[in-house]
Amino acid sequence: MPTQNKPSLPVIKRLPKYYRYLGEMEKEGVTKVSSSELARVMGTTASQVRQDFNCFGGFGQQGIGYNVKLLHEELGKLIFARHPVPTILIGAGNLGHAMANYFRQDTQGFELLAAFDVKPEMIGLTLCGVAIRDMAELESYCAEHKPKVAVICVPREAAKQVAQKLIDLGIRAFWNFSHYDFSIEYPDIIVENVHLGDSLATLSYEVNNNL
Amino acid sequence: MPTQNKPSLPVIKRLPKYYRYLGEMEKEGVTKVSSSELARVMGTTASQVRQDFNCFGGFGQQGIGYNVKLLHEELGKLIFARHPVPTILIGAGNLGHAMANYFRQDTQGFELLAAFDVKPEMIGLTLCGVAIRDMAELESYCAEHKPKVAVICVPREAAKQVAQKLIDLGIRAFWNFSHYDFSIEYPDIIVENVHLGDSLATLSYEVNNNL
Repeated sequence: MPTQNKPSLPVIKRLPKYYRYLGEMEKEGVTKVSSSELARVMGTTASQVRQDFNCFGGFGQQGIGYNVKLLHEELGKLIFARHPVPTILIGAGNLGHAMANYFRQDTQGFELLAAFDVKPEMIGLTLCGVAIRDMAELESYCAEHKPKVAVICVPREAAKQVAQKLIDLGIRAFWNFSHYDFSIEYPDIIVENVHLGDSLATLSYEVNNNL
Repeated sequence: MPTQNKPSLPVIKRLPKYYRYLGEMEKEGVTKVSSSELARVMGTTASQVRQDFNCFGGFGQQGIGYNVKLLHEELGKLIFARHPVPTILIGAGNLGHAMANYFRQDTQGFELLAAFDVKPEMIGLTLCGVAIRDMAELESYCAEHKPKVAVICVPREAAKQVAQKLIDLGIRAFWNFSHYDFSIEYPDIIVENVHLGDSLATLSYEVNNNL
């Protein structure tokens, strides 16, 4: 499929949502969908939907609508890796535990290989089926297993310290639950941020002021 | 503190980030900060920072800069409830477990009272120190304990079903990890969404196409 324009970050961030809605439509037996129908569920405009898909080569013919099954498949191919991407988790504390738990069921093309921590009492334990290793082993582990993605579940200060090390060891993509902002020092690194604390604080503000 | 304009959602979403950065500055011993310094760490403009704070009454004097400690305190008062907000968790599966785990340490003004599930084998178990109750008990439980917030960790279909029930039982705010879109049917309800699956899918796209 020829790519017309390099998609911008907002377009990329909408892809998983398109993918979800198309999956639901397929389950419900819908075979065709127009850009205006997709726009309605996405909370956007039909023109935006067509522009988004044009970034990836179009997927449809004017006036005919999109084939739900095909579009769902094509987006799936764009989003998900064919082979599981080897992934490691840094920080086996409360949040790390939560995320290892999440990876056990919703792998979505990622394979969690190992977890790392600095606390001696945690080393050797198992976190949701994955061994917790000493951070001191990180270099030899990466040389052998070549993980491509790291899930960062350590506090901001620790994240800042391990970022350089992980990048030196060949990791180029991060699912970042810390509040360390990778983009300032490493603009070329792939980072997807999830700020649970900010999300809960936003809810707190709303509850505090508008409930 | 007089409120000048009702803050918009983007302003509210920036508050936790301001709060975090000010907390870090305070720890580092910084006492004064200008709107342009704040703008730099926030990735915005000085004019935006001043506009944001004007929504809450200003917090500073032109040309003098903001008092870091005071501003941090004031934002904290705006964001966090004085008394823990009674909260329940719906769905004690993998993700529910992860989030109960999160609440144990990072309560931020919320108190997790109970978890609910429909699976008979889970009822009566404990999830990170909180009892798992039968969904059938939800009505009597809410009548007695009056929770104000629900954390939704069930699949989209189940979330759609429980939403009406929870709203009927007096719950007006949701931390929503499901893909059910509350805002379509309940525009007046407070909802903060966290779509972990979409976030991981976005990372997957980037790894798949740009690594």
